[in-house]
Amino acid sequence: MTSKTDTEVIIGGRVLTLSGYESEEYLQKIALYINNKIAEYKKIESFKRQSTDTQCILMELNIADDYFKAKKQIAVLEADIESQDQEICDLKHDLIAEKCKRESIDKTMDGMKQEIARYKELIAEKERQISEKDKLIAEKEKEITKLSNRQKA
Amino acid sequence: MTSKTDTEVIIGGRVLTLSGYESEEYLQKIALYINNKIAEYKKIESFKRQSTDTQCILMELNIADDYFKAKKQIAVLEADIESQDQEICDLKHDLIAEKCKRESIDKTMDGMKQEIARYKELIAEKERQISEKDKLIAEKEKEITKLSNRQKA
Repeated sequence: MTSKTDTEVIIGGRVLTLSGYESEEYLQKIALYINNKIAEYKKIESFKRQSTDTQCILMELNIADDYFKAKKQIAVLEADIESQDQEICDLKHDLIAEKCKRESIDKTMDGMKQEIARYKELIAEKERQISEKDKLIAEKEKEITKLSNRQKA
Repeated sequence: MTSKTDTEVIIGGRVLTLSGYESEEYLQKIALYINNKIAEYKKIESFKRQSTDTQCILMELNIADDYFKAKKQIAVLEADIESQDQEICDLKHDLIAEKCKRESIDKTMDGMKQEIARYKELIAEKERQISEKDKLIAEKEKEITKLSNRQKA
């Protein structure tokens, strides 16, 4: 756990000791931010004419404006994240659908490969039958020649 | 273009006329936010003991702290968006790769369909040849029977 520390900051020329859990670096960054705002405002004549109390409220309003603009940006970014979440979800869905489609096609293709193998076997079998029939035809022709020759003799 | 308007707000019991381009609704929201902070601080004894100037700086620091915390949140959200952008990019890439793979498989399958059609034609042709050879064999057998019978006679 971070321990409570005292940090001295100078804001608007005043030295303040801040006690808290924030790091010194962080507190100095905030002090610098406020001092820059004070420096900016000190250039404006109409600001300098105001009472100290009014100057204080105007400074608070200005810082609060930065805060509300940041909050608005947060809302925009959160909406962006939500829309990106939806896009990621849609893309993941599309990817799964595409993979399922491919798996189904892969199965169909496996079936076709088996079909092709069966057809190749069938063609080889038919060619074997043709070759046997050719042999039989040659035998029959030989027998016919023999019988014809015998008749002539 | 939005025109410059004057808006009256009450902050810490003081009436201020703010001139600017912000909507009245927005300025009243900021005023309410500051008034809530003032009300919170007024409950703290150690705050009340401080001089008006110090009270002013402490309020400024508190509001600036809200602002810096919002800025930190913006940085976190921006990093999230960047990582989501990367994820979307990767998913889109995967989806394209998957589609390309499927297109390639589709082409292979078209080739296989044509191959199957060719094999079917070839099998039909072989069967036609077998049938013709069977016819020829039957004719030859008939001739042999005729020649054999003639010899016997």
